[in-house]
Amino acid sequence: MQIAAQPFPYEFELATTALVIIDMQRDFLEPGGFGESLGNDVGLLRKIIPACREVLQSWRERGGLVVHTRESHRADLSDCPPAKRERGSPRLRIGDVGPMGRILVAGEPGNAIIPELAPAPGEIEIDKPGKGAFHATPLQDLLQARGITHLVFMGVTTEVCVQTSMREANDRGYDCLLLEDCTESYFPRFKASTVEMIHAQGGIVGWVASSADFLRAR
Amino acid sequence: MQIAAQPFPYEFELATTALVIIDMQRDFLEPGGFGESLGNDVGLLRKIIPACREVLQSWRERGGLVVHTRESHRADLSDCPPAKRERGSPRLRIGDVGPMGRILVAGEPGNAIIPELAPAPGEIEIDKPGKGAFHATPLQDLLQARGITHLVFMGVTTEVCVQTSMREANDRGYDCLLLEDCTESYFPRFKASTVEMIHAQGGIVGWVASSADFLRAR
Repeated sequence: MQIAAQPFPYEFELATTALVIIDMQRDFLEPGGFGESLGNDVGLLRKIIPACREVLQSWRERGGLVVHTRESHRADLSDCPPAKRERGSPRLRIGDVGPMGRILVAGEPGNAIIPELAPAPGEIEIDKPGKGAFHATPLQDLLQARGITHLVFMGVTTEVCVQTSMREANDRGYDCLLLEDCTESYFPRFKASTVEMIHAQGGIVGWVASSADFLRAR
Repeated sequence: MQIAAQPFPYEFELATTALVIIDMQRDFLEPGGFGESLGNDVGLLRKIIPACREVLQSWRERGGLVVHTRESHRADLSDCPPAKRERGSPRLRIGDVGPMGRILVAGEPGNAIIPELAPAPGEIEIDKPGKGAFHATPLQDLLQARGITHLVFMGVTTEVCVQTSMREANDRGYDCLLLEDCTESYFPRFKASTVEMIHAQGGIVGWVASSADFLRAR
């Protein structure tokens, strides 16, 4: 299949492509979570939910592989670098008790993926301690075992966890596509700049397309 | 020691801090290399050389650890993902013969660090196949063996290899500082945006300071 994309058309096959949904968690999309504790307006991110749902539904109908990531730490915080916990003196630190349970801790209500995009049985779920989805996770092994060579990214936030994961994936040789209307940042100017950085220099990190163009590839 | 920085002062100790110089190679800074083959004006990057030299000289006099990275591939290209070699149809592909030898291949004249910043005996040299300095390299092991917890970054290009390496380092728990006048991009707007992304949200990736402020910390 081939779709219109920046900086040039993106080619992929269903069997070797995974849809990767980054950190669409209550901790980043609802009040009282980690995103808000860093001083952000979390409402800004919710507008991409319908487009993400539509892509996820279509991809499931086609039988494509789905990966969901969550930024999360173990209850004892043994996988949370002290530097990460202290940085910037947030109102609530990782591991503190907030209105949705302990901030950014696996298994707490706030750490779950939002119900609109909840993982289905058989889909891969990755708990990641960093911004990147490959660091200190089994993602690379799981993708290699399935012969995946292409990754299509959605999720939040564009310039932090999405960009970091795409750069890790690009270094590992995956052909990466970002769905522009299925990603958002707390800072719209950072989203715009990151999108441009990704497809600059002949696609130095990867490709960017609209969900409409991606959905037309059947 | 403590220096003025964005978003708040940066604290570090000489014994646990490494100066990391990213990809100041002829392939990116001189005509005929990989940077130019991607359509870039390589002259833009050369203006940071004097500031980088001053910081490197001062750091050496203090006895600090220095790390130099080079983006490079093995002569047989076995560590170059096909996707990386084909992407964007550059005028010269990785491994092709250019005016400074084979493009982005270890040991070729164009792959060397520029003479102004040439590594000294005892300094760590990292050949990296990706944009990030940690992926598929021994960097993490080498830093851990020396008890390094803080990394000060210089080099090129800001939004590609410097940013990718800082994000990898941040996920691994290092406190990272970028010296703003010792890094440059082929796209000045990408440098400006990347600098802002690094220190946003309370320093979500790390800190940014001037080389003058860094040099004052004695």
